[in-house]
Amino acid sequence: MRLARLGPIGAEHPVVFAADGTAHDLTPLTADLDGAFLAADGIARTRAALDAGELPVVDPEGLRVGAPVTGIGKIVCIGLNYARHAAESGATPPAEPVVFMKGADTVVGPDDDVLIPRNSVKTDYEVELAVVVGRKARYLDSPADAAAHIAGYAISNDVSEREFQLERGGQWDKGKNCETFNPLGPWLVPADGIAVPELRLQSWINGEARQDERAADMIFDVPHLVWYLSQFMVLHPGDVVNTGTPAGVAMGLPGQPYLRAGDVMELEISGLGRQRQTCA
Amino acid sequence: MRLARLGPIGAEHPVVFAADGTAHDLTPLTADLDGAFLAADGIARTRAALDAGELPVVDPEGLRVGAPVTGIGKIVCIGLNYARHAAESGATPPAEPVVFMKGADTVVGPDDDVLIPRNSVKTDYEVELAVVVGRKARYLDSPADAAAHIAGYAISNDVSEREFQLERGGQWDKGKNCETFNPLGPWLVPADGIAVPELRLQSWINGEARQDERAADMIFDVPHLVWYLSQFMVLHPGDVVNTGTPAGVAMGLPGQPYLRAGDVMELEISGLGRQRQTCA
Repeated sequence: MRLARLGPIGAEHPVVFAADGTAHDLTPLTADLDGAFLAADGIARTRAALDAGELPVVDPEGLRVGAPVTGIGKIVCIGLNYARHAAESGATPPAEPVVFMKGADTVVGPDDDVLIPRNSVKTDYEVELAVVVGRKARYLDSPADAAAHIAGYAISNDVSEREFQLERGGQWDKGKNCETFNPLGPWLVPADGIAVPELRLQSWINGEARQDERAADMIFDVPHLVWYLSQFMVLHPGDVVNTGTPAGVAMGLPGQPYLRAGDVMELEISGLGRQRQTCA
Repeated sequence: MRLARLGPIGAEHPVVFAADGTAHDLTPLTADLDGAFLAADGIARTRAALDAGELPVVDPEGLRVGAPVTGIGKIVCIGLNYARHAAESGATPPAEPVVFMKGADTVVGPDDDVLIPRNSVKTDYEVELAVVVGRKARYLDSPADAAAHIAGYAISNDVSEREFQLERGGQWDKGKNCETFNPLGPWLVPADGIAVPELRLQSWINGEARQDERAADMIFDVPHLVWYLSQFMVLHPGDVVNTGTPAGVAMGLPGQPYLRAGDVMELEISGLGRQRQTCA
């Protein structure tokens, strides 16, 4: 089962894809896929309604794919969470998670254009596993408590401008919050169907393979991250956690092949679908 | 004229205070004070309705004061923007603005309790001038264009946990996003009535004066900040910019008198009112 939001920007409709690939209208159950729906057992209710045959079949053909969650409160990002990426960034693996933030207004659909910022010469891609929070998480006792607070997973492209991030004074957020800098989707896949460590994260630029690691390579795994973050902030339903990117970003490659207008980014995580953005 | 939101948490109602101090119900004009209202010329419409006697008088006595804006998209914060505060922080004045982020879910009313996080020993206060964005700002041509995008001003307490911020690996956001860490208000004061450089920012802890500077002491002034940020991100109506704090925070004082449960913070900016929080 996969949840999605299909339609023009700002007019997406919620849809659920059954295991056989047929698309079903979710509007009998909810006006949209947001934190309130997830917190109100939305995933379980979707599965029950689907199994009961209560959701009419729809034709998704030709419809734009939006981000699979709306009304996102905040995007919390983890830096340097794969050892080889930390090394290519010239950093030692962190002793505890590195945390930074993206505004939810950076989110676009998985196949929407990504805008190279004005005066940018170092725009970079980052395929990441996104955790979508399903239940409020505050001071969790242990990583074992994390699962109950996760609604599902999606692909996130944590687009980054390295000069803005690293060479313009201070904190990383300056290079992480440019317009269109967080393609999300295509689907929200319920957590109970996902064995996170086995997920394979890959990216290609203009068809050339760039990143390819398993989520098992994370320094801090998903349960640890959700538990850890809950000690410093409250995670609300609909919040998103970007869990860090594997090695192979432009910053770490010979010649640093940063993105230019016309470049095509493709990102895939096994079981979570595929994104394709053109840089504009 | 001052705009406010009064009532229990989650059930605040919009109110406008006229120049003579009388409170008027704003619900004939809008269900709430948010970015959509500000973008739709809400300030001008409020003034017109008030002048036309269209808003019924209400009694604000005894009502809790909420944050004066709701539906905030993101809070963009400026670090080290007063030279004496940079010095007390052990930093040199920045060559360009230092930018970090707070989630909007940290916002509470100006007199609500502030929670000392678990395991915190370095919770600190920061009185700041908050800019509330009224119109979308994207790649502004110059600082002179900033004014048209600012709805008004408020007091912000950019509460910070210094150990989480500075000693726990990486980026500042980890010590800036704890629950209740951004009291905002009491009022949103329209920008056209405010001469920013003359504003006096002050804070007291348990009645003892701690911070006292003018907004004129900012290294980067408000028009510069709004113009600068618009080169890196889109500012949307209802977004908030915390413009940095003057010298006198606990981190910079002899003995570093960080906040403990029971301490009372009071913050004031001339013309923008006064906040009072108890640490819990």
